[in-house]
Amino acid sequence: MDIALLGGTGDIGEGLALRFAYHTNHEVLIGSRDPERAEGKAREYETELDSRGVDTMIEGGSNEAVAAAADVVVLAVPPYYVADTIETVAAALDEGDILVSPATGMDRDDAGFHYHPPPAGSVTRHAANAAPEGIPLVGAYHNLAAGRLANLDADLGIDTFVLGDDEDAKDVVTWLTEDIEGLRVLDAGSIANAAEVESLTPLLINVAANNEGLHELGLELK
Amino acid sequence: MDIALLGGTGDIGEGLALRFAYHTNHEVLIGSRDPERAEGKAREYETELDSRGVDTMIEGGSNEAVAAAADVVVLAVPPYYVADTIETVAAALDEGDILVSPATGMDRDDAGFHYHPPPAGSVTRHAANAAPEGIPLVGAYHNLAAGRLANLDADLGIDTFVLGDDEDAKDVVTWLTEDIEGLRVLDAGSIANAAEVESLTPLLINVAANNEGLHELGLELK
Repeated sequence: MDIALLGGTGDIGEGLALRFAYHTNHEVLIGSRDPERAEGKAREYETELDSRGVDTMIEGGSNEAVAAAADVVVLAVPPYYVADTIETVAAALDEGDILVSPATGMDRDDAGFHYHPPPAGSVTRHAANAAPEGIPLVGAYHNLAAGRLANLDADLGIDTFVLGDDEDAKDVVTWLTEDIEGLRVLDAGSIANAAEVESLTPLLINVAANNEGLHELGLELK
Repeated sequence: MDIALLGGTGDIGEGLALRFAYHTNHEVLIGSRDPERAEGKAREYETELDSRGVDTMIEGGSNEAVAAAADVVVLAVPPYYVADTIETVAAALDEGDILVSPATGMDRDDAGFHYHPPPAGSVTRHAANAAPEGIPLVGAYHNLAAGRLANLDADLGIDTFVLGDDEDAKDVVTWLTEDIEGLRVLDAGSIANAAEVESLTPLLINVAANNEGLHELGLELK
Protein backbone atom coordinates (compact mmCIF):
# COMPACT_ATOMS: atom_id res chain seq x y z
CA MET A 1 0.00 0.00 0.00
CA ASP A 2 0.98 3.64 -0.28
CA ILE A 3 1.41 5.38 3.05
CA ALA A 4 1.63 9.17 3.16
CA LEU A 5 3.11 10.82 6.23
CA LEU A 6 1.81 14.37 6.35
CA GLY A 7 4.26 16.40 8.39
CA GLY A 8 6.65 13.59 7.58
CA THR A 9 9.62 15.90 8.05
CA GLY A 10 8.97 16.05 11.83
CA ASP A 11 10.13 13.62 14.49
CA ILE A 12 7.29 11.11 14.53
CA GLY A 13 6.96 11.32 10.74
CA GLU A 14 10.65 10.52 10.38
CA GLY A 15 10.41 7.60 12.79
CA LEU A 16 7.41 6.06 11.05
CA ALA A 17 8.85 6.69 7.57
CA LEU A 18 12.12 4.96 8.41
CA ARG A 19 10.41 1.99 10.07
CA PHE A 20 7.87 1.47 7.26
CA ALA A 21 10.59 1.75 4.64
CA TYR A 22 13.04 -0.45 6.54
CA HIS A 23 10.75 -3.29 7.62
CA THR A 24 7.98 -3.39 5.02
CA ASN A 25 7.40 -3.32 1.28
CA HIS A 26 4.85 -0.52 1.44
CA GLU A 27 5.52 2.72 -0.43
CA VAL A 28 6.33 5.67 1.82
CA LEU A 29 5.51 9.24 0.81
CA ILE A 30 6.65 12.26 2.80
CA GLY A 31 4.38 15.30 2.88
CA SER A 32 4.99 18.79 4.13
CA ARG A 33 3.46 22.22 3.69
CA ASP A 34 6.80 22.94 1.98
CA PRO A 35 7.26 20.40 -0.86
CA GLU A 36 10.98 21.12 -1.21
CA ARG A 37 11.52 20.37 2.44
CA ALA A 38 9.60 17.10 2.00
CA GLU A 39 11.75 16.14 -0.96
CA GLY A 40 14.92 16.98 0.95
CA LYS A 41 13.86 14.82 3.88
CA ALA A 42 12.83 11.97 1.58
CA ARG A 43 16.39 11.99 0.12
CA GLU A 44 17.79 12.02 3.66
CA TYR A 45 15.71 8.98 4.66
CA GLU A 46 16.73 7.16 1.47
CA THR A 47 20.38 7.80 2.27
CA GLU A 48 19.94 6.46 5.80
CA LEU A 49 18.23 3.34 4.46
CA ASP A 50 20.81 2.91 1.72
CA SER A 51 23.56 2.92 4.36
CA ARG A 52 21.78 -0.13 5.82
CA GLY A 53 21.54 -1.90 2.50
CA VAL A 54 17.90 -1.03 1.84
CA ASP A 55 17.46 0.33 -1.65
CA THR A 56 14.12 2.09 -1.61
CA MET A 57 12.51 5.12 -3.17
CA ILE A 58 10.72 7.55 -0.89
CA GLU A 59 8.66 10.27 -2.52
CA GLY A 60 8.36 13.78 -1.13
CA GLY A 61 5.87 16.48 -1.96
CA SER A 62 3.16 18.77 -0.69
CA ASN A 63 0.73 17.32 1.85
CA GLU A 64 -2.00 17.52 -0.83
CA ALA A 65 0.07 15.73 -3.47
CA VAL A 66 1.13 12.83 -1.27
CA ALA A 67 -2.36 12.47 0.23
CA ALA A 68 -3.76 12.21 -3.30
CA ALA A 69 -1.32 9.42 -4.13
CA ALA A 70 -1.71 7.40 -0.93
CA ASP A 71 -4.15 4.83 0.48
CA VAL A 72 -3.33 5.53 4.11
CA VAL A 73 -2.70 9.11 5.20
CA VAL A 74 -0.99 9.63 8.56
CA LEU A 75 -1.44 13.04 10.21
CA ALA A 76 2.05 13.28 11.70
CA VAL A 77 1.53 16.90 12.69
CA PRO A 78 1.14 18.65 16.05
CA PRO A 79 -2.37 18.35 17.54
CA TYR A 80 -3.32 21.97 16.84
CA TYR A 81 -2.63 21.47 13.10
CA VAL A 82 -4.57 18.22 12.73
CA ALA A 83 -7.92 19.74 11.69
CA ASP A 84 -6.32 22.29 9.33
CA THR A 85 -4.20 19.60 7.74
CA ILE A 86 -7.25 17.40 7.12
CA GLU A 87 -9.02 20.37 5.55
CA THR A 88 -6.03 21.01 3.27
CA VAL A 89 -6.01 17.46 1.91
CA ALA A 90 -9.75 16.65 2.07
CA ALA A 91 -10.33 17.11 -1.66
CA ALA A 92 -7.40 14.81 -2.41
CA LEU A 93 -8.85 11.84 -0.51
CA ASP A 94 -10.72 9.08 -2.34
CA GLU A 95 -13.23 6.54 -1.16
CA GLY A 96 -11.35 3.73 0.53
CA ASP A 97 -8.59 5.99 1.84
CA ILE A 98 -7.93 5.95 5.57
CA LEU A 99 -6.77 8.79 7.81
CA VAL A 100 -4.55 7.94 10.78
CA SER A 101 -4.07 10.25 13.78
CA PRO A 102 -1.08 9.73 16.12
CA ALA A 103 -1.17 13.11 17.89
CA THR A 104 -1.86 13.70 21.57
CA GLY A 105 -2.46 16.90 23.52
CA MET A 106 -0.18 17.73 26.43
CA ASP A 107 0.75 20.61 28.62
CA ARG A 108 3.58 20.89 31.08
CA ASP A 109 4.13 22.28 34.56
CA ASP A 110 6.89 21.92 37.15
CA ALA A 111 5.77 18.36 37.95
CA GLY A 112 5.91 17.08 34.39
CA PHE A 113 3.70 16.56 31.38
CA HIS A 114 -0.06 16.21 31.58
CA TYR A 115 -2.72 15.01 29.22
CA HIS A 116 -4.55 18.04 27.88
CA PRO A 117 -7.08 17.08 25.22
CA PRO A 118 -9.01 19.48 23.02
CA PRO A 119 -12.70 20.13 23.81
CA ALA A 120 -13.71 17.09 21.72
CA GLY A 121 -12.26 14.91 24.51
CA SER A 122 -9.28 13.54 22.62
CA VAL A 123 -7.15 14.53 19.65
CA THR A 124 -8.30 11.36 17.89
CA ARG A 125 -11.94 12.43 18.26
CA HIS A 126 -11.04 15.99 17.19
CA ALA A 127 -9.42 14.54 14.06
CA ALA A 128 -12.34 12.20 13.37
CA ASN A 129 -14.73 15.14 13.62
CA ALA A 130 -12.67 16.95 10.96
CA ALA A 131 -12.51 13.97 8.58
CA PRO A 132 -14.54 14.26 5.37
CA GLU A 133 -17.75 12.22 5.16
CA GLY A 134 -16.98 8.62 4.23
CA ILE A 135 -13.26 8.71 5.09
CA PRO A 136 -12.64 6.63 8.24
CA LEU A 137 -10.14 7.83 10.81
CA VAL A 138 -8.06 5.48 12.93
CA GLY A 139 -6.07 6.53 15.99
CA ALA A 140 -2.65 4.84 16.16
CA TYR A 141 1.02 5.25 17.12
CA HIS A 142 0.30 7.70 19.99
CA ASN A 143 2.61 5.99 22.44
CA LEU A 144 5.62 5.48 20.20
CA ALA A 145 8.78 7.44 20.96
CA ALA A 146 9.92 9.10 17.74
CA GLY A 147 13.63 8.80 18.48
CA ARG A 148 13.34 5.10 19.18
CA LEU A 149 11.57 4.51 15.88
CA ALA A 150 14.15 6.58 14.02
CA ASN A 151 17.03 4.63 15.51
CA LEU A 152 16.95 1.55 13.30
CA ASP A 153 19.52 -0.13 15.56
CA ALA A 154 16.95 -0.16 18.38
CA ASP A 155 14.86 -3.30 18.75
CA LEU A 156 11.28 -2.34 19.43
CA GLY A 157 9.56 -5.24 21.24
CA ILE A 158 6.72 -2.92 22.22
CA ASP A 159 3.02 -2.39 21.67
CA THR A 160 1.00 0.27 19.95
CA PHE A 161 -2.77 0.71 19.98
CA VAL A 162 -5.39 1.26 17.32
CA LEU A 163 -8.68 3.02 17.94
CA GLY A 164 -11.49 3.38 15.48
CA ASP A 165 -15.17 3.17 14.75
CA ASP A 166 -14.66 1.51 11.33
CA GLU A 167 -13.47 -2.05 11.92
CA ASP A 168 -12.23 -2.55 8.36
CA ALA A 169 -10.09 0.58 8.49
CA LYS A 170 -8.72 -0.47 11.85
CA ASP A 171 -7.86 -3.89 10.42
CA VAL A 172 -5.94 -2.30 7.53
CA VAL A 173 -3.89 -0.11 9.87
CA THR A 174 -3.25 -3.10 12.14
CA TRP A 175 -2.10 -5.24 9.25
CA LEU A 176 0.16 -2.51 7.81
CA THR A 177 1.69 -1.73 11.17
CA GLU A 178 2.37 -5.30 12.19
CA ASP A 179 4.73 -5.51 9.23
CA ILE A 180 7.08 -3.40 11.34
CA GLU A 181 9.26 -5.86 13.20
CA GLY A 182 8.86 -5.79 16.96
CA LEU A 183 5.67 -3.76 16.98
CA ARG A 184 2.55 -5.51 18.30
CA VAL A 185 -0.73 -3.78 17.53
CA LEU A 186 -3.48 -4.00 20.14
CA ASP A 187 -7.07 -2.99 19.57
CA ALA A 188 -8.09 -0.41 22.18
CA GLY A 189 -11.64 -0.25 20.87
CA SER A 190 -13.54 2.69 19.50
CA ILE A 191 -12.52 6.35 19.31
CA ALA A 192 -14.49 6.89 22.53
CA ASN A 193 -11.57 5.12 24.25
CA ALA A 194 -8.87 7.43 22.83
CA ALA A 195 -8.19 9.61 25.88
CA GLU A 196 -6.75 6.70 27.85
CA VAL A 197 -4.42 5.81 24.98
CA GLU A 198 -3.34 9.40 24.40
CA SER A 199 -2.62 9.75 28.15
CA LEU A 200 0.20 7.23 27.79
CA THR A 201 2.48 9.77 26.15
CA PRO A 202 2.80 12.13 29.14
CA LEU A 203 3.04 9.11 31.47
CA LEU A 204 5.96 7.64 29.52
CA ILE A 205 7.72 11.02 29.46
CA ASN A 206 7.20 11.53 33.21
CA VAL A 207 8.49 8.06 34.07
CA ALA A 208 11.58 8.56 31.90
CA ALA A 209 12.22 11.89 33.63
CA ASN A 210 11.96 10.37 37.13
CA ASN A 211 13.90 7.11 36.76
CA GLU A 212 17.55 6.80 35.89
CA GLY A 213 18.43 4.81 32.82
CA LEU A 214 15.00 4.95 31.22
CA HIS A 215 14.48 6.98 28.08
CA GLU A 216 12.52 6.81 24.83
CA LEU A 217 10.18 4.47 26.65
CA GLY A 218 7.67 2.16 25.10
CA LEU A 219 5.51 -0.41 26.78
CA GLU A 220 4.44 -4.01 26.50
CA LEU A 221 1.14 -5.21 27.88
CA LYS A 222 1.42 -8.66 29.42
CA MET B 1 7.03 -2.98 58.64
CA ASP B 2 3.33 -3.29 59.40
CA ILE B 3 1.08 -2.80 56.38
CA ALA B 4 -2.64 -2.27 56.92
CA LEU B 5 -4.99 -2.86 54.01
CA LEU B 6 -8.18 -0.93 54.71
CA GLY B 7 -10.94 -2.54 52.74
CA GLY B 8 -8.61 -5.52 52.68
CA THR B 9 -11.55 -7.87 52.20
CA GLY B 10 -12.10 -6.55 48.66
CA ASP B 11 -10.39 -7.66 45.45
CA ILE B 12 -7.36 -5.39 45.38
CA GLY B 13 -6.94 -5.69 49.15
CA GLU B 14 -6.91 -9.47 48.84
CA GLY B 15 -4.37 -9.37 46.00
CA LEU B 16 -2.00 -7.07 47.86
CA ALA B 17 -2.43 -8.96 51.15
CA LEU B 18 -1.56 -12.29 49.56
CA ARG B 19 1.43 -10.89 47.65
CA PHE B 20 2.89 -9.04 50.66
CA ALA B 21 2.40 -12.08 52.88
CA TYR B 22 3.74 -14.53 50.28
CA HIS B 23 6.83 -12.65 49.06
CA THR B 24 7.88 -10.44 51.98
CA ASN B 25 8.47 -10.54 55.72
CA HIS B 26 6.28 -7.52 56.42
CA GLU B 27 3.27 -7.89 58.72
CA VAL B 28 -0.07 -7.72 56.93
CA LEU B 29 -3.20 -6.44 58.65
CA ILE B 30 -6.65 -6.64 57.10
CA GLY B 31 -9.09 -3.85 57.89
CA SER B 32 -12.80 -3.56 57.21
CA ARG B 33 -15.73 -1.53 58.46
CA ASP B 34 -16.86 -4.92 59.80
CA PRO B 35 -14.10 -6.35 62.04
CA GLU B 36 -15.53 -9.87 61.96
CA ARG B 37 -15.46 -9.88 58.21
CA ALA B 38 -11.82 -8.70 58.33
CA GLU B 39 -10.93 -11.50 60.72
CA GLY B 40 -12.68 -14.06 58.55
CA LYS B 41 -10.80 -12.92 55.46
CA ALA B 42 -7.50 -12.88 57.36
CA ARG B 43 -8.06 -16.57 58.27
CA GLU B 44 -8.91 -17.29 54.62
CA TYR B 45 -5.67 -15.66 53.41
CA GLU B 46 -3.67 -17.56 56.06
CA THR B 47 -5.18 -20.84 54.86
CA GLU B 48 -4.30 -20.04 51.24
CA LEU B 49 -0.72 -19.19 52.24
CA ASP B 50 -0.45 -22.24 54.48
CA SER B 51 -1.43 -24.43 51.51
CA ARG B 52 1.67 -23.04 49.80
CA GLY B 53 3.94 -23.71 52.75
CA VAL B 54 3.96 -20.14 54.05
CA ASP B 55 3.23 -20.09 57.77
CA THR B 56 2.25 -16.51 58.52
CA MET B 57 -0.13 -14.66 60.80
CA ILE B 58 -2.44 -12.09 59.28
CA GLU B 59 -4.39 -9.88 61.65
CA GLY B 60 -7.89 -8.67 60.95
CA GLY B 61 -9.86 -5.92 62.62
CA SER B 62 -11.68 -2.65 62.16
CA ASN B 63 -10.14 -0.12 59.79
CA GLU B 64 -9.36 2.09 62.83
CA ALA B 65 -7.69 -0.71 64.78
CA VAL B 66 -5.43 -1.91 61.97
CA ALA B 67 -4.56 1.68 60.94
CA ALA B 68 -3.50 2.37 64.53
CA ALA B 69 -1.21 -0.67 64.50
CA ALA B 70 0.37 -0.11 61.07
CA ASP B 71 3.16 2.02 59.60
CA VAL B 72 1.80 2.00 56.06
CA VAL B 73 -1.96 2.24 55.55
CA VAL B 74 -3.30 1.29 52.11
CA LEU B 75 -6.72 2.65 51.17
CA ALA B 76 -7.92 -0.42 49.26
CA VAL B 77 -11.46 0.94 49.02
CA PRO B 78 -13.56 2.23 46.11
CA PRO B 79 -12.73 5.83 45.12
CA TYR B 80 -15.92 7.29 46.57
CA TYR B 81 -15.05 5.87 50.01
CA VAL B 82 -11.45 7.09 50.09
CA ALA B 83 -12.04 10.42 51.85
CA ASP B 84 -14.51 8.95 54.37
CA THR B 85 -12.14 6.10 55.13
CA ILE B 86 -9.28 8.53 55.79
CA GLU B 87 -11.54 10.52 58.11
CA THR B 88 -12.47 7.36 60.01
CA VAL B 89 -8.84 6.44 60.70
CA ALA B 90 -7.28 9.92 60.94
CA ALA B 91 -7.06 9.92 64.75
CA ALA B 92 -5.36 6.51 64.66
CA LEU B 93 -2.47 7.69 62.47
CA ASP B 94 0.87 8.65 64.04
CA GLU B 95 3.69 10.82 62.80
CA GLY B 96 5.75 8.76 60.39
CA ASP B 97 2.79 6.77 59.11
CA ILE B 98 2.16 6.77 55.37
CA LEU B 99 -1.15 6.58 53.52
CA VAL B 100 -1.23 4.80 50.15
CA SER B 101 -4.00 5.30 47.58
CA PRO B 102 -4.46 2.73 44.78
CA ALA B 103 -7.98 3.76 43.67
CA THR B 104 -8.91 5.18 40.29
CA GLY B 105 -12.15 6.72 39.04
CA MET B 106 -13.85 5.17 36.02
CA ASP B 107 -17.14 5.19 34.28
CA ARG B 108 -18.39 2.96 31.52
CA ASP B 109 -20.34 3.28 28.29
CA ASP B 110 -20.95 1.02 25.31
CA ALA B 111 -17.39 1.57 24.06
CA GLY B 112 -15.68 0.56 27.27
CA PHE B 113 -14.25 2.07 30.44
CA HIS B 114 -13.15 5.68 30.71
CA TYR B 115 -11.10 7.61 33.19
CA HIS B 116 -13.45 9.72 35.28
CA PRO B 117 -11.59 11.51 38.08
CA PRO B 118 -13.19 13.43 40.92
CA PRO B 119 -13.15 17.26 40.79
CA ALA B 120 -9.68 17.31 42.45
CA GLY B 121 -8.29 15.99 39.13
CA SER B 122 -7.33 12.50 40.29
CA VAL B 123 -8.32 10.10 43.05
CA THR B 124 -4.77 10.31 44.38
CA ARG B 125 -5.08 14.11 44.74
CA HIS B 126 -8.55 13.71 46.26
CA ALA B 127 -7.05 11.32 48.83
CA ALA B 128 -4.05 13.59 49.52
CA ASN B 129 -6.43 16.49 50.12
CA ALA B 130 -8.24 14.38 52.74
CA ALA B 131 -5.05 13.24 54.52
CA PRO B 132 -4.42 14.68 57.98
CA GLU B 133 -1.73 17.37 58.31
CA GLY B 134 1.71 15.77 58.47
CA ILE B 135 0.70 12.36 57.10
CA PRO B 136 2.11 11.92 53.58
CA LEU B 137 0.06 10.19 50.93
CA VAL B 138 1.59 8.11 48.14
CA GLY B 139 -0.30 6.92 45.06
CA ALA B 140 0.58 3.33 44.10
CA TYR B 141 -0.74 0.03 42.70
CA HIS B 142 -3.34 1.70 40.45
CA ASN B 143 -2.54 -0.44 37.43
CA LEU B 144 -2.38 -3.84 39.09
CA ALA B 145 -5.06 -6.39 38.25
CA ALA B 146 -6.45 -7.73 41.53
CA GLY B 147 -7.05 -11.24 40.20
CA ARG B 148 -3.51 -11.54 38.91
CA LEU B 149 -2.08 -10.53 42.28
CA ALA B 150 -4.36 -12.95 44.09
CA ASN B 151 -3.32 -15.84 41.88
CA LEU B 152 0.01 -16.73 43.49
CA ASP B 153 0.77 -19.13 40.63
CA ALA B 154 0.94 -16.15 38.25
CA ASP B 155 4.36 -14.65 37.62
CA LEU B 156 4.10 -10.89 37.65
CA GLY B 157 7.00 -9.45 35.62
CA ILE B 158 5.22 -6.11 35.48
CA ASP B 159 5.57 -2.52 36.65
CA THR B 160 3.69 -0.38 39.09
CA PHE B 161 4.05 3.34 39.67
CA VAL B 162 4.47 5.51 42.74
CA LEU B 163 3.37 9.13 42.91
CA GLY B 164 3.99 11.49 45.78
CA ASP B 165 5.08 14.87 46.99
CA ASP B 166 7.05 13.47 49.95
CA GLU B 167 10.16 11.75 48.59
CA ASP B 168 10.90 9.83 51.79
CA ALA B 169 7.39 8.37 51.91
CA LYS B 170 7.63 7.45 48.24
CA ASP B 171 10.96 5.72 48.92
CA VAL B 172 9.43 3.66 51.74
CA VAL B 173 6.54 2.50 49.54
CA THR B 174 8.97 1.72 46.71
CA TRP B 175 11.20 -0.31 48.99
CA LEU B 176 8.31 -2.23 50.54
CA THR B 177 6.73 -2.97 47.18
CA GLU B 178 9.91 -4.11 45.47
CA ASP B 179 10.02 -6.96 47.98
CA ILE B 180 7.18 -8.46 45.94
CA GLU B 181 8.82 -10.71 43.39
CA GLY B 182 8.30 -9.64 39.81
CA LEU B 183 7.01 -6.19 40.59
CA ARG B 184 9.16 -3.25 39.46
CA VAL B 185 8.32 0.12 40.97
CA LEU B 186 8.73 3.17 38.78
CA ASP B 187 8.61 6.74 40.03
CA ALA B 188 5.96 8.67 38.10
CA GLY B 189 6.76 11.90 39.92
CA SER B 190 4.51 14.03 42.05
CA ILE B 191 0.79 13.70 42.71
CA ALA B 192 0.22 16.27 39.96
CA ASN B 193 1.05 13.43 37.56
CA ALA B 194 -1.54 11.01 38.96
CA ALA B 195 -4.24 11.30 36.28
CA GLU B 196 -2.01 9.71 33.63
CA VAL B 197 -1.23 6.78 35.93
CA GLU B 198 -4.85 6.31 36.98
CA SER B 199 -5.88 6.34 33.29
CA LEU B 200 -4.00 3.09 32.78
CA THR B 201 -6.70 1.05 34.51
CA PRO B 202 -9.48 1.71 31.97
CA LEU B 203 -6.94 1.32 29.13
CA LEU B 204 -5.87 -2.11 30.35
CA ILE B 205 -9.51 -3.20 30.75
CA ASN B 206 -10.42 -1.94 27.27
CA VAL B 207 -7.47 -3.68 25.63
CA ALA B 208 -8.29 -6.94 27.40
CA ALA B 209 -11.90 -6.64 26.21
CA ASN B 210 -10.88 -6.04 22.58
CA ASN B 211 -8.09 -8.59 22.07
CA GLU B 212 -8.44 -12.33 22.34
CA GLY B 213 -6.25 -14.10 24.84
CA LEU B 214 -5.43 -11.03 26.92
CA HIS B 215 -6.84 -10.70 30.41
CA GLU B 216 -5.79 -9.45 33.84
CA LEU B 217 -3.30 -7.28 31.97
CA GLY B 218 -0.28 -5.55 33.44
CA LEU B 219 2.41 -3.65 31.64
CA GLU B 220 6.15 -3.34 31.45
CA LEU B 221 7.82 -0.15 30.36
CA LYS B 222 10.88 -0.80 28.21
